[in-house]
Amino acid sequence: MRIGIVGAGQLARMLALAGYPLGHQFLVYDRSTGTPGGQVAPDIVGAFDDPGQLRRFASQVDVVTFDWENVPVASARILAEDVPVWPPPRALEVAQDRVAEKNLFRRLGIGTAPYAAVSTQTDLRRAARRIGLPAVLKTRRMGYDGKGQAWLRDAADLEPAWQQLGGEPLIYEGFVAFGREVSLVSARSRDGDIVHYPLAENHHAQGILSWTRAPYVNEPLRRAAERHMVRVLEALDYTGVLCIEFFVRGRELLANEMAPRVHNSGHWTIEGAVTSQFENHVRAVTGMPLGSTAARGPAVMVNFIGDMPDADALLARPGVHLHDYGKTPR
Amino acid sequence: MRIGIVGAGQLARMLALAGYPLGHQFLVYDRSTGTPGGQVAPDIVGAFDDPGQLRRFASQVDVVTFDWENVPVASARILAEDVPVWPPPRALEVAQDRVAEKNLFRRLGIGTAPYAAVSTQTDLRRAARRIGLPAVLKTRRMGYDGKGQAWLRDAADLEPAWQQLGGEPLIYEGFVAFGREVSLVSARSRDGDIVHYPLAENHHAQGILSWTRAPYVNEPLRRAAERHMVRVLEALDYTGVLCIEFFVRGRELLANEMAPRVHNSGHWTIEGAVTSQFENHVRAVTGMPLGSTAARGPAVMVNFIGDMPDADALLARPGVHLHDYGKTPR
Repeated sequence: MRIGIVGAGQLARMLALAGYPLGHQFLVYDRSTGTPGGQVAPDIVGAFDDPGQLRRFASQVDVVTFDWENVPVASARILAEDVPVWPPPRALEVAQDRVAEKNLFRRLGIGTAPYAAVSTQTDLRRAARRIGLPAVLKTRRMGYDGKGQAWLRDAADLEPAWQQLGGEPLIYEGFVAFGREVSLVSARSRDGDIVHYPLAENHHAQGILSWTRAPYVNEPLRRAAERHMVRVLEALDYTGVLCIEFFVRGRELLANEMAPRVHNSGHWTIEGAVTSQFENHVRAVTGMPLGSTAARGPAVMVNFIGDMPDADALLARPGVHLHDYGKTPR
Repeated sequence: MRIGIVGAGQLARMLALAGYPLGHQFLVYDRSTGTPGGQVAPDIVGAFDDPGQLRRFASQVDVVTFDWENVPVASARILAEDVPVWPPPRALEVAQDRVAEKNLFRRLGIGTAPYAAVSTQTDLRRAARRIGLPAVLKTRRMGYDGKGQAWLRDAADLEPAWQQLGGEPLIYEGFVAFGREVSLVSARSRDGDIVHYPLAENHHAQGILSWTRAPYVNEPLRRAAERHMVRVLEALDYTGVLCIEFFVRGRELLANEMAPRVHNSGHWTIEGAVTSQFENHVRAVTGMPLGSTAARGPAVMVNFIGDMPDADALLARPGVHLHDYGKTPR
């Protein structure tokens, strides 16, 4: 099959590298050429909201998937008129809006931090009274890696946070004194089969994933996370890989956010699991059966950003693998 | 680095897929477009003996390697004038000629089947007298997968075999009543470091590799094979992956042939070893340190040719991985 990927970053790159051995071909779509994905697959250049170019792309592929959850939902729906699109546009729609996402979690009985939608300064003050401080004010859309967020330690922080973020739809999230953050990466096939990778434990630095270790072994948490995941996958009639990040507070899981795609907390599965998240996503969206998600052993993924460490020094260590994204530092 | 690969078959394809995560780029060279390698990397089309096109290719890459050992040695030497070429052209030269190969083995104290170079019918009769029957008459050059060979069961087979193969330089090889065939895949870095994969046991059907299982555990044979391998690697001042196939006769190893490249009896290393033969070949030719060759567990590689089995039925079995070469059946 020829698989179209909207967004041609490192995730598209790793999807293509995992899908070629299965006999698939790829076409990636992004705003520029020379992308990480475009280095390993043919590409089409176009805006994410250019219907003509999107239709030209759809006409050349058998199925479309995403490397980026912020593709306009209208574009996903245009593509879905011509070709199967997985995950479904509805999943993008929910994942693009932190309030819709948390509403879905709540509707499915999945715990979250206390939250409120904020459109005005009055909303903000009301949320601070109801939910309390400390808290985080975030844009509902397009935030990632700690961008579009302001910490609210006390009441004096409300006004500057509003100056920084006001005007866009916002979400007020109560602070969760969590012990750790874990994520669950799972895949659902077109037929509704579901497989779960072991839980992974994530550590962030400055809002960016710094390292992940897996498996994070905790049977009660694993069972709870899988129960939550199944509800979300089925509610969205999902196909492909989905990641949900959870805060662990005592014995309780609070869903933080979800990513309707392969996720960097699942990169360890390339060498660390029998079938990687990338291969299982490709298998899912092309209608192939899903592969074993069993861990081969303990694994750690370390995320390097900007200046890269010396590749030779890394590779001289037994068991270390390098996954270069093909990016140049900003 | 940008790595040029002469020959764009499945081995080039799998080298590129293993090398992209290390941050390398690829350019493949073959006689036509749409090749297995050309599906996953940019390609240049040219004859293997076109000096102008080869020089154009060399000018665009940092290092050259091969997916095919029968690239004309003169072409390899032309490339080596402009860019590092690994394995060295001398290794191709030896591996392209069954007599030169066996002479090297013999010079290094490595056992082989009895053999004789045959250019005339007189040579053939003399070899049959000296070495005896049964035997195999083979072309010295360009034979692979059982092509260019004639079995000699008794004296009556000499004349028809000569009719079939005479005129080309030939080799007469005495029949070896071997118990099994094993192969050793090893890699040597630019600095002279050597790593060996576990021995693999190979089964052929109609002269074509049918299946391989690894590790084939036999400590005395492993030690003997590694001793032989080190001698060959050092005699050729080799860089990259080399495979030597051995017949096992009792406790003795007889070198059958070598392949100066990644080898299909090493495909199991993709999932079955910590670092695949493809990644280690890329590491070697680019001057990176070699990775661990330890097996992750037992592995079997089955080679499908022509009509492919149903991919979904295969992938539904836990632990099965598919590596489609991107070829269409002849």
